Amino acid sequence: MTLPFARRLDHVETSAIRELFKLLGKPGIISFAGGFPDSALFDVEGLQQASRQALTENPGAALQYGATEGHEPLRAQLAAFMQAKGATHVTPQDLIVTTGSQQALDLIGKTLVDPGDPVLVEGPTFLATIQCFRLYGARVLTVPIDGEGVQVDRLEAALVAHRPKFIYLIPSFGNPSGALVPLARRLRILELAVQYRTLVVEDDPYGDLHFDQPAPPSLLALTAQVPGSREWLVYCGSLSKVLSPGLRVGWMVGPQALLAKATMCKQFSDAHTSTFAQATAAAYLASGRMPARLDEVRRVYARRASTMVEALRRELGEAIAFTAPQGGLFVWARLTGAGGRLADAGELARRAIEQGVAFVPGAPFFAADPDPASLRLSFATADEDKIREGVARLARALR
Amino acid sequence: MTLPFARRLDHVETSAIRELFKLLGKPGIISFAGGFPDSALFDVEGLQQASRQALTENPGAALQYGATEGHEPLRAQLAAFMQAKGATHVTPQDLIVTTGSQQALDLIGKTLVDPGDPVLVEGPTFLATIQCFRLYGARVLTVPIDGEGVQVDRLEAALVAHRPKFIYLIPSFGNPSGALVPLARRLRILELAVQYRTLVVEDDPYGDLHFDQPAPPSLLALTAQVPGSREWLVYCGSLSKVLSPGLRVGWMVGPQALLAKATMCKQFSDAHTSTFAQATAAAYLASGRMPARLDEVRRVYARRASTMVEALRRELGEAIAFTAPQGGLFVWARLTGAGGRLADAGELARRAIEQGVAFVPGAPFFAADPDPASLRLSFATADEDKIREGVARLARALR
Repeated sequence: MTLPFARRLDHVETSAIRELFKLLGKPGIISFAGGFPDSALFDVEGLQQASRQALTENPGAALQYGATEGHEPLRAQLAAFMQAKGATHVTPQDLIVTTGSQQALDLIGKTLVDPGDPVLVEGPTFLATIQCFRLYGARVLTVPIDGEGVQVDRLEAALVAHRPKFIYLIPSFGNPSGALVPLARRLRILELAVQYRTLVVEDDPYGDLHFDQPAPPSLLALTAQVPGSREWLVYCGSLSKVLSPGLRVGWMVGPQALLAKATMCKQFSDAHTSTFAQATAAAYLASGRMPARLDEVRRVYARRASTMVEALRRELGEAIAFTAPQGGLFVWARLTGAGGRLADAGELARRAIEQGVAFVPGAPFFAADPDPASLRLSFATADEDKIREGVARLARALR
Repeated sequence: MTLPFARRLDHVETSAIRELFKLLGKPGIISFAGGFPDSALFDVEGLQQASRQALTENPGAALQYGATEGHEPLRAQLAAFMQAKGATHVTPQDLIVTTGSQQALDLIGKTLVDPGDPVLVEGPTFLATIQCFRLYGARVLTVPIDGEGVQVDRLEAALVAHRPKFIYLIPSFGNPSGALVPLARRLRILELAVQYRTLVVEDDPYGDLHFDQPAPPSLLALTAQVPGSREWLVYCGSLSKVLSPGLRVGWMVGPQALLAKATMCKQFSDAHTSTFAQATAAAYLASGRMPARLDEVRRVYARRASTMVEALRRELGEAIAFTAPQGGLFVWARLTGAGGRLADAGELARRAIEQGVAFVPGAPFFAADPDPASLRLSFATADEDKIREGVARLARALR
């Protein structure tokens, strides 16, 4: 028996990365492979209190069906959260709550992409985005990055050449690049959006995870400085990296016309995001615990990042090239092949597993023209001793 | 500025029913319009305990990313729940958790429907299903019902005529029909699925809400009696009507090949269903409180249904025709026009609002050939005095 699957599935696959993850069960393995935050940093006590409050103060609302646009107390908290980060124009009506920011991407694909439509993404970019847009028939085209994120001259050339439906970017500590787009480049991106009348989707799960100094304002906040740009900007936010991925609470800020269509589609996607999770998130944000928690999370990740950077330089030297991250969860690197050593990150990943350390090769993160020498190392979930030991194993695998 | 929305949105609209709901804010209105359970029947204490347990026993798992297929303890509980209802073959690996059963429908559309594909539904059926499948380009075709649900001779004729991608049915106390498909007809549906090699999607949110006697076994359970039928049956379950819609916990049972594709699509839809909600639901089901809660919910709804049925007969007499429901949340009725009275349910809905009572006209529930005399009355959320008063107001509106 063969089920009559839809043609849209023909060119989309469960990611190669997921196959790798099956190997992570091996005992004693040190993993730099994940893309998730450290569970040990979750504010369990704060979330226990918030969940108790949600189920005590208004259990009917937390357990009943809710508005597709989102639970009003949460929309109010998220608007305040965005305002505090410089997007001072954002009101509760300017955002809808989504089931993680992954659903925001899905709703963007559903509302905007016709089969064959070109969509621009960074090369490399978040793997699940590429697949998500391809499921709606998008032709996903790549604009290369450098150490400061997307290259804006190449972006403009691609806008001219392809007239894409939209541009998808992760300007702050992107997955997998870890790159931070500087202020001037951000402003230029907004100018291009206005000039070419093209939507920019800003995915921002990591922007709050800066180390020494805050990231420049989000594209969303910067729309105030670029006339006409607000109507071309869609912002996707998430509590996954700063509070808890398990809540599945994200949000989307955008032009009202887009929010209305996305809300209509969401009705038929999952009716609404868990009101139980939304009410808990709202109570948590209202509790005022987030700023201190963010400080703690940043401090821990900054220390782990610097430990990994130092260990990579010490142990792998010229065999690896990378820009030290200023925030986020990842070191994005290239094997240089210096001294005749391995320059194939896929092969290194296999040898590394044998040595007891895991990471993700970079090639799958490219929608086109994969760089086989690239790799992504997450410093988020291993402690500093483990990071040093894991990098030492990596060095052994490279010998 | 006009955003370049995808063509798939062209023929889908936010439902007419949602517009009606905006009128429900009017003070003192008695609503028979909702499609939701009574918040007063939620087991708040049980869910408080379950949520506390989830965040105490293994907070890391409840708050971290989880498997797209679902949280293992919940899959185990849901398999046991299905087994206890006669689907004895269902193992945890035979189901995936979805963000409400609405997401199961969305994943079915995404994995199976190519633009132009015919899909069969009952006329009338659940409104959000029609729209959900249309978003993937389905041509939604209607098979009429009678007091015992879908008419199987008409179903067979439609299978022959249209060779649909699948058939979507709500065999137990369907929304909006409230109809219960008897055993013989259920078996016939499964035989047709095998004979015409066509998937049947069984949506079953109401099956547990029976009054005097249990519904016949689900199509899923009955696959054991019809050789070859198991591979053609997809079952969508939900905790929304029996525990809490706000959790957004549903599940899908189906052939492994379909579950694999649906899981892949779900990765890009929302990554996974809230692990926080899943862990809470798992702890609740493990607590053993569900059977007593179900007894209570059935008892209350049965009383309200019988109150509504008696009031309708007393107050509206021959002006209205309906089959008394044996479970679920709804009375589905037709205005007969007897004695020259109004037979247009849309017009009655407007007059009823003026009299202080709301219900939903039936026409929007038909994918084709709407019956303008039909209407849906929910007895789920008003107490018995309110039901009697609401029906009296309805009678005044009809005069």
